[in-house]
Amino acid sequence: MIRVGIIGATGYAGGELVRLLLGHREAQIKWYGSRSYVDQKYAKVYQNMFQLVDDRCLDDNMSEMAKQVDVIFTATPQGLCASLVNDDILNKVKVIDLSADFRIKDASVYEAWYGIEHKAKQYLDEAVYGLCELNREEIKKARLVANPGCYPTCSILSIYPLLKEGLIDPATVIIDAKSGTSGAGRGAKVDNLFCEVNENIKAYGVATHRHTPEIEQELSLAAGEPMTISFTPHLVPMQRGILVTAYASLKKEVTYEEVKAVYDRYYGNETFVRVLDQDVCPQTRWVEGSNYVDVGFKIDPRTRRIIMMGAMDNLVKGAAGQAVQNMNLVCGLDEAEGLRMAPLFP
Amino acid sequence: MIRVGIIGATGYAGGELVRLLLGHREAQIKWYGSRSYVDQKYAKVYQNMFQLVDDRCLDDNMSEMAKQVDVIFTATPQGLCASLVNDDILNKVKVIDLSADFRIKDASVYEAWYGIEHKAKQYLDEAVYGLCELNREEIKKARLVANPGCYPTCSILSIYPLLKEGLIDPATVIIDAKSGTSGAGRGAKVDNLFCEVNENIKAYGVATHRHTPEIEQELSLAAGEPMTISFTPHLVPMQRGILVTAYASLKKEVTYEEVKAVYDRYYGNETFVRVLDQDVCPQTRWVEGSNYVDVGFKIDPRTRRIIMMGAMDNLVKGAAGQAVQNMNLVCGLDEAEGLRMAPLFP
Amino acid sequence: MIRVGIIGATGYAGGELVRLLLGHREAQIKWYGSRSYVDQKYAKVYQNMFQLVDDRCLDDNMSEMAKQVDVIFTATPQGLCASLVNDDILNKVKVIDLSADFRIKDASVYEAWYGIEHKAKQYLDEAVYGLCELNREEIKKARLVANPGCYPTCSILSIYPLLKEGLIDPATVIIDAKSGTSGAGRGAKVDNLFCEVNENIKAYGVATHRHTPEIEQELSLAAGEPMTISFTPHLVPMQRGILVTAYASLKKEVTYEEVKAVYDRYYGNETFVRVLDQDVCPQTRWVEGSNYVDVGFKIDPRTRRIIMMGAMDNLVKGAAGQAVQNMNLVCGLDEAEGLRMAPLFP
Amino acid sequence: MIRVGIIGATGYAGGELVRLLLGHREAQIKWYGSRSYVDQKYAKVYQNMFQLVDDRCLDDNMSEMAKQVDVIFTATPQGLCASLVNDDILNKVKVIDLSADFRIKDASVYEAWYGIEHKAKQYLDEAVYGLCELNREEIKKARLVANPGCYPTCSILSIYPLLKEGLIDPATVIIDAKSGTSGAGRGAKVDNLFCEVNENIKAYGVATHRHTPEIEQELSLAAGEPMTISFTPHLVPMQRGILVTAYASLKKEVTYEEVKAVYDRYYGNETFVRVLDQDVCPQTRWVEGSNYVDVGFKIDPRTRRIIMMGAMDNLVKGAAGQAVQNMNLVCGLDEAEGLRMAPLFP
Repeated sequence: MIRVGIIGATGYAGGELVRLLLGHREAQIKWYGSRSYVDQKYAKVYQNMFQLVDDRCLDDNMSEMAKQVDVIFTATPQGLCASLVNDDILNKVKVIDLSADFRIKDASVYEAWYGIEHKAKQYLDEAVYGLCELNREEIKKARLVANPGCYPTCSILSIYPLLKEGLIDPATVIIDAKSGTSGAGRGAKVDNLFCEVNENIKAYGVATHRHTPEIEQELSLAAGEPMTISFTPHLVPMQRGILVTAYASLKKEVTYEEVKAVYDRYYGNETFVRVLDQDVCPQTRWVEGSNYVDVGFKIDPRTRRIIMMGAMDNLVKGAAGQAVQNMNLVCGLDEAEGLRMAPLFP
Repeated sequence: MIRVGIIGATGYAGGELVRLLLGHREAQIKWYGSRSYVDQKYAKVYQNMFQLVDDRCLDDNMSEMAKQVDVIFTATPQGLCASLVNDDILNKVKVIDLSADFRIKDASVYEAWYGIEHKAKQYLDEAVYGLCELNREEIKKARLVANPGCYPTCSILSIYPLLKEGLIDPATVIIDAKSGTSGAGRGAKVDNLFCEVNENIKAYGVATHRHTPEIEQELSLAAGEPMTISFTPHLVPMQRGILVTAYASLKKEVTYEEVKAVYDRYYGNETFVRVLDQDVCPQTRWVEGSNYVDVGFKIDPRTRRIIMMGAMDNLVKGAAGQAVQNMNLVCGLDEAEGLRMAPLFP
Repeated sequence: MIRVGIIGATGYAGGELVRLLLGHREAQIKWYGSRSYVDQKYAKVYQNMFQLVDDRCLDDNMSEMAKQVDVIFTATPQGLCASLVNDDILNKVKVIDLSADFRIKDASVYEAWYGIEHKAKQYLDEAVYGLCELNREEIKKARLVANPGCYPTCSILSIYPLLKEGLIDPATVIIDAKSGTSGAGRGAKVDNLFCEVNENIKAYGVATHRHTPEIEQELSLAAGEPMTISFTPHLVPMQRGILVTAYASLKKEVTYEEVKAVYDRYYGNETFVRVLDQDVCPQTRWVEGSNYVDVGFKIDPRTRRIIMMGAMDNLVKGAAGQAVQNMNLVCGLDEAEGLRMAPLFP
Repeated sequence: MIRVGIIGATGYAGGELVRLLLGHREAQIKWYGSRSYVDQKYAKVYQNMFQLVDDRCLDDNMSEMAKQVDVIFTATPQGLCASLVNDDILNKVKVIDLSADFRIKDASVYEAWYGIEHKAKQYLDEAVYGLCELNREEIKKARLVANPGCYPTCSILSIYPLLKEGLIDPATVIIDAKSGTSGAGRGAKVDNLFCEVNENIKAYGVATHRHTPEIEQELSLAAGEPMTISFTPHLVPMQRGILVTAYASLKKEVTYEEVKAVYDRYYGNETFVRVLDQDVCPQTRWVEGSNYVDVGFKIDPRTRRIIMMGAMDNLVKGAAGQAVQNMNLVCGLDEAEGLRMAPLFP
């Protein structure tokens, strides 16, 4: 039985880790770390866990935690994991960081976009970018996994195969993304009140969102050349779900069958990426509560562009679910353990 | 492995049965019965099941189905199950009827409230009212289980212990209930369009809702005398969830501790009924996607009334979840198999 | 042209006052009072007012404001108006207080339910309870109007005629009320985040909500005897709207026509109370954005109870709209000026 | 007083026309045309109009209507207006067609995208495209106004100035649009049920949506050359509102101030187009219920693209509001009459 500690167990991503791990047959949560709720019963913070979790919240002492568990998840704001992790910890436990601290390989890029100093540059090389479908073998051997951001996971998986195969022009990639509100976290902010979010849609962080360099880094690897993308996130009045609508110019004329074959080659054997049938558009409702990413596309002969689309649950495949998938990989377990639940509808 | 057939697999309750049974380790769906989608792929109707369910919909031939499965669920409009069931079928399979056909023991009451003739009165005595927490032992021996209605399940569980123990006056019971929209089914009606339901709350079926006699029947058994209640359902702009707020006059002065002890005596050992802590009100968000019913209460010394509250997911404990719980009981399985998932939040 | 000052112009009720007064042909806002946004442009706080309101927020100095305006609205938390108002102010301007400070005639009741000392008991007798349909003539002569609470407005209007006419038993009145989230205000609280409110319904303040004594006070006047009621508010995932479902035992057998005639006698000439047709239930969507209250009822011969229902927009008739209606009355204007907009649907 | 007839008064756009015209001081509705509700009280179809509209629905006989009114609105499916309109009618009344029949100047394009034969090609030249801010003078003289589509209104107004001024490359324009569900109409379809729309976002009509040629036609006029665009609409779980996020490559380096000056030159004197301040993104909540379009933009120096954004209420500026604005223009009234209501928030 894998013993697990969670730093940041009382945020939405932390709460989702708890939900998933309760259904995991080979893992057990030993440490519910929190900053705001130390000593309070976890089930008081998340009443859905009443009678399911009896533990109280502990603090976020990573060194102490590392003595008692096998895997540590950090579901905390940027900077915390980098400020806590050290060799002593990494020698004892596997660390899966849900923050952005180890996603960007170039510390100067991280520091420019996030506006904070990177406190653990020495681990940037070692850390593996935990997009399981792309980096499975490296993840299995990692001590430190950088769990991808929500928008990057959905964006990269939607675009990667066509870029890798040279079907689309890297200079033309535009990603228009839409997210449910749980992505904004559980902080008490006026902007996230029901009356401000409901009956509303808006773009935010236009041309400046921090997930941009993360997407660019991974897509550049696929393209084999440095890429710059337009990335625009939007806030949608729903709780969960991310939809990515990505645009790119085709480098040559292609048929539906050719593109479909490419996607199938990359994802045909993947449990959690579902390439949809022709003319079926991904919808967030069909993946809610699950670890699936649904991918579809449409060729537009009039504009010689292709529209690539992906839908997933931002808290599962976009955060906690992928983190558990990474845990399964680093621990040598069945990759899908604890993640097989079907999407919830309606 | 229990083989399962579902008549009405393409309604919301049927879809939820499919979701739950996919996670059940000892059951396998052999027949996806539908009226509107015969021969179509089930995953075309419910895209969340893409790559998870490969079957096509079959018709709703119960006799044929009975030759191929061990348990039949009927998740169909009133009248269908009663018109199909017969001795031949009941001798071969267990039938769990999610419609109202076998809930009301008095056929004349059924016919008065539902406005249709009862086609299988001969099974009314035999059928067991499948509220698992109250009728567990009878259910285990049943061939035909009448799966309770959504409002009745939540109402009865919230009120039953106090009525049974004689703490409240049966003549004063008023139930004000609120339901999410999935309870209205997947039929294409203007009243259930997003733009009609959203930003709205309304009462409906005031003093005439068909779940009234079902609640009265079961509460009368608890009270030991015939009861008449006021029952008012409301439609709430959410997908899932039922909240019951019930009022009754106390027959004598009682303390919080005394009432709590009564609830604990009835539900302390129940997996799926959670008696909340003092002054904690049930909320539907804390049970979403799960089989739990959360129960709470508040004594009002000013009015000498007690307010009893219950929250549950109308599609799980209020329909498909309780149906699976009943299947587990009639098949001699662990009662909670397939139902242990924690509630989803947010 | 009536000059208006608003203390608390940046809360939801204050914002609604601004919206309504912009459409009022005989009033002009001279002072946008705020505590949190002093010196900021009002249209930065409420971007819907961009290019419509050019003013900056001022402080909440009531004495200074009284020199510059004719009418002052206080849309602030309990206690503030009572702590600011004085003879000097009341001699200069009309004050319409949207808080609870002058609603409860008995200061000890106010202090018990609100938990704060009443700072201006000397005006309690003079203040007029501003439920326009009941106290129209007194309001016209008032210097200080206590604008009713949202739940009380809807509850009282739904029940008053039957109580006044002696048709229902005062001891049996139970009010189950449901409100949209704007009633909870614009404060940054976790409980009011989109992800906490959406897909949820809950009761709150059970047996202890502060609007209880306000409703009891006014209904007791109607009944001609002191009354105690059960009042249970619920939070619904919508922005605006209150629905009241009230229950009472009938004192004698009555027909639909008799009860309808009573409602019509009280409200037939009222612009803003609409008595619905037989068997039509009020729905909040049909009054959204407007000052209307829709009232309906259903006699239940089985239980000898009557179910009385009312729906209105909590921010309009439940707050800012009724406040404008009161302003019109105290200023001798057409009572409906600025309030004639039809409800918005969908 | 202008006498008005509405064909299709019982759809959502028709209902919004009624709401707006009730507040219009110089217009009066004489004919509530409907197909499904003939002879029924209009206020039974839209209960918000209870006691405000006493009329019954009439049929959709345009010739008869033309004898009794001055202006006819057709808020009906494609094809109907073209099949009814004739010289006799146009000589008597002004026709404002909210369908697509007269928007596309090239009948073959219309027929290709809409899949129906155009029945009144002879009026295509005469009909004026009723985007008021662009074609004001032509509209004033028109007999037949083609009221623009919802997506086209928001898209064109967001992009037009920069295209007209040659700042952006026409070949690179991509429009990613998001709409509330009222745009899908009041038809009873499973896809528009609350449980299907809520907690969901999806693209639809990818590369094939019928508003594409309409946008292309008008933007081509601005660009002075034929343009092909990518246009992707999305369905968002809200009732009202359209948000457009448009992307284009800049033809030269420009500053914020230069672009702002262009927008201000085009819209500075417009009542209903609001150019937002720097870095303020349009949000649909700030225009709900009103005729305003909020426009903003962001220059992205990294990609040399500009992101242009627009938000409006699809039922007002995107349908009924613009239709009233057109009526005001063709009738020589104040263009803003009946349209001055401030946006509703929350």
